[in-house]
Amino acid sequence: MSSTTALRSLNINNINPHIKEAKYAVRGELAVRSQTYRDQLSKGEQANLPFDKVIAANIGNPQQLDQKPISFFRQVLSLLENPPLLEKEQILEEGLGYKKDVIERAKWLLQQVGSVGAYSDSTGAKAIRESVAKFIERRDGFPAVANDIYLSAGASSGVNTLLHIICAGPQTGILVPIPQYPLYTASLSVLNATCVPYLLDESKNWGTDLEAIKTSYKKAVSEGTDVRAIVIINPGNPTGASLSEEDVKAVIDFAAQEKLVVMADEVYQTNVFKGKFHSFKGVLRKMQKEDPEKYKNVELASLHSVSKGMVGECGHRGGYFELCGFDPEVQEQIYKFVSISLCAPVIGQCLVELMVNPPKEGEPSYELYKQEYEGIFTGLQKRAMALYEAFKEMEGVECEEPQGSMYLFPTITLSDKAIEAAKKENKSPDEFYASRLLDATGVCVVPGSGFGQKENTLHFRTTFLAPGTEWVGRITKFHQEFMDEFR
Amino acid sequence: MSSTTALRSLNINNINPHIKEAKYAVRGELAVRSQTYRDQLSKGEQANLPFDKVIAANIGNPQQLDQKPISFFRQVLSLLENPPLLEKEQILEEGLGYKKDVIERAKWLLQQVGSVGAYSDSTGAKAIRESVAKFIERRDGFPAVANDIYLSAGASSGVNTLLHIICAGPQTGILVPIPQYPLYTASLSVLNATCVPYLLDESKNWGTDLEAIKTSYKKAVSEGTDVRAIVIINPGNPTGASLSEEDVKAVIDFAAQEKLVVMADEVYQTNVFKGKFHSFKGVLRKMQKEDPEKYKNVELASLHSVSKGMVGECGHRGGYFELCGFDPEVQEQIYKFVSISLCAPVIGQCLVELMVNPPKEGEPSYELYKQEYEGIFTGLQKRAMALYEAFKEMEGVECEEPQGSMYLFPTITLSDKAIEAAKKENKSPDEFYASRLLDATGVCVVPGSGFGQKENTLHFRTTFLAPGTEWVGRITKFHQEFMDEFR
Repeated sequence: MSSTTALRSLNINNINPHIKEAKYAVRGELAVRSQTYRDQLSKGEQANLPFDKVIAANIGNPQQLDQKPISFFRQVLSLLENPPLLEKEQILEEGLGYKKDVIERAKWLLQQVGSVGAYSDSTGAKAIRESVAKFIERRDGFPAVANDIYLSAGASSGVNTLLHIICAGPQTGILVPIPQYPLYTASLSVLNATCVPYLLDESKNWGTDLEAIKTSYKKAVSEGTDVRAIVIINPGNPTGASLSEEDVKAVIDFAAQEKLVVMADEVYQTNVFKGKFHSFKGVLRKMQKEDPEKYKNVELASLHSVSKGMVGECGHRGGYFELCGFDPEVQEQIYKFVSISLCAPVIGQCLVELMVNPPKEGEPSYELYKQEYEGIFTGLQKRAMALYEAFKEMEGVECEEPQGSMYLFPTITLSDKAIEAAKKENKSPDEFYASRLLDATGVCVVPGSGFGQKENTLHFRTTFLAPGTEWVGRITKFHQEFMDEFR
Repeated sequence: MSSTTALRSLNINNINPHIKEAKYAVRGELAVRSQTYRDQLSKGEQANLPFDKVIAANIGNPQQLDQKPISFFRQVLSLLENPPLLEKEQILEEGLGYKKDVIERAKWLLQQVGSVGAYSDSTGAKAIRESVAKFIERRDGFPAVANDIYLSAGASSGVNTLLHIICAGPQTGILVPIPQYPLYTASLSVLNATCVPYLLDESKNWGTDLEAIKTSYKKAVSEGTDVRAIVIINPGNPTGASLSEEDVKAVIDFAAQEKLVVMADEVYQTNVFKGKFHSFKGVLRKMQKEDPEKYKNVELASLHSVSKGMVGECGHRGGYFELCGFDPEVQEQIYKFVSISLCAPVIGQCLVELMVNPPKEGEPSYELYKQEYEGIFTGLQKRAMALYEAFKEMEGVECEEPQGSMYLFPTITLSDKAIEAAKKENKSPDEFYASRLLDATGVCVVPGSGFGQKENTLHFRTTFLAPGTEWVGRITKFHQEFMDEFR
């Protein structure tokens, strides 16, 4: 394409350079190509493709694949959208499925928000923030207050807000795990701040490695970077790790020592298959109880979302973050910043309420809720294990046992011949592999380079959301053929 | 409060300075205070306050006040939230209110998006973007294409995206009308770009004044600013103006001559009480037909929203922008940028579909839709006129006749004594007036300085969304007392 500099105000060479620098592979070239394949298939153009279905294993989008929404949640939301239904006795009839607790919750929420079509307070409806605070109290066993809770349009919007406040220019550094979810590096590019990468320890199930964190921190500081915060994703994306309490403690201790904000991305807190989820908030409060002087000023922002877990309502863009230990003047600036975009989607806010306050034992909707919730959990666990077992059998593939989140992040070892072939196509070896995989099988994964990976290692991230095992078989078959081709 | 510099990572002196600089008065100090009053009243603490109700005339939030949602829209949304209802014959029974076209539309939308709980494409569901394109074609009489439509979380998010792309640093200048909706100046502060203000002409019903635009443009260019875009809000916020076709043409002509992106904020396009709405897209295409050579490369971004008009669904955060004449490489970067936040809320996207494709004559839901739509329109017009008539009677108040949008922006002339009293409280005179108004009446308006105003003029912005005339009487009474006090 010829340059349009002379013709237009905007061209690729004069727009915001920080947007140009940003990378976001989860929805990058392969995702776009997979959409083209999907369009071709929907037009009946199967003949041109060696597969009859595209599997979007590139993105944690549960309801795009197989996960059904939780009935209680959606029933309440439907009444919030159509309040006249609340006045109709008929909706309680057997057939329509509305139970009394559904109606009560919808009425209560409508009292709180007025209409889901009205803007709420900038930080979200107060009553819902109070529900979130109570949820956090129950989860952690320590108090929480509504004024420190900010409802957001998914966790992404919360991360965007926090990084906007923290980053004051190129000299600001943020410690980001490698591999990471690329929201972090992309946002830091857009904000023209400095990403200070620290490597996770693949040999220890992708746990945090305090020595690696310290080394990265010291190096950045010695280069003049003002390191202000550390990002932790737990359970891990893309790694699937679930941190031990000791790992969480070590990070908080380090943050206290170096006065770093801890940004705890905990959107997968209910996707834990092995061990137990340890919230940063809960661990911090325990440490503060034991040594108040040392830990009292630790600044923690912890994020959660309706997009993941058994809720899986990505499309509704609901979430929240909680602040602990932040300077009140800084919180005022956060309030102003979120005001500029008015408020998070109100129906998404209501979904946050439902997530933190699901039906309780003895309530009419409880049995169905429990059955649906457990069904999703078990299904995810089974799929994770099936995929893990398949990866274990593949030549040159190593994979940690699934612990949490929605992803596996296997290592792949490719031959020199494959690496050479990638080079010829101007691709990194993992991009080359993922690209071939998509073209051959219709399975879309994200190359490890989209998340960052240790030098001379190769990975890909796949969700385990897709149902069945047929698509896993497709990967196995492709992999064998790929290995044979480049032997 | 003592400085916390020594204790914490973040404090008011080291956070992002551009966030600190940003101002957003619509949800500023007065809005916060009005919320405190509302809380007091809800706790039964009337005794302390000289009013028994807070009127939020500070923000265009129709459903917070009196505007009822359109039934057809909400019925469809309720089925999208609770798809099992679609299989129940009962919902077609008289009492529940669902008509056949509601069910058909919900089924069609579900086919397109899969689940409203799933992420859509980054730029929004394709089928909905196609509906938007057809709507624009019908509105303007010129073709539109889905690939140039970007669904957004309200228009605010669209503005945020566009300014992120356009602004490359402090040298980038954007022409912004004064008075303006503070989203523009706030976003430019956050992006550390330069606002190039141009004054609207109050004497011509707040129309655009080409000479004023040219003068501002030349001054900025002579100071080394790279002016890249011009923002137009039509119908006007806060002014209530509705531009003539000549005004629109003059802006496009100027933009073509100086190679400026035109950012047309057209969220109030159906709130027009006098004359007719002239879309920038339609006028541009006409100009291109008459003189293709001169206008072929004009870059136009026009924004629309579900928040305003007779839809009034702010809380759902739905909207779109259409691009014309943009460089494809720039559009690729826009795609990447919006991908980082994944997608606009899907239920809000569905509301965009309903807004651009409401029931047609002959369809089962048409009569009720028409009745509701016209009822809202007439109600707003009546309220606007009643408020206008009241302002006309007030001493020292001048107000343009309502033309469009949801606001009146009267000029107030205050005595030297009042201005002196404001100074003593460290307030601008209009802030002082609006603050007194809130404390005395519970009516929350936004001082003109929150939008920018010509030197030595004073205004306030009020919505005319609140029902009844009692609150207008409260303003009249306060105003007289205020004038008397400072005579």
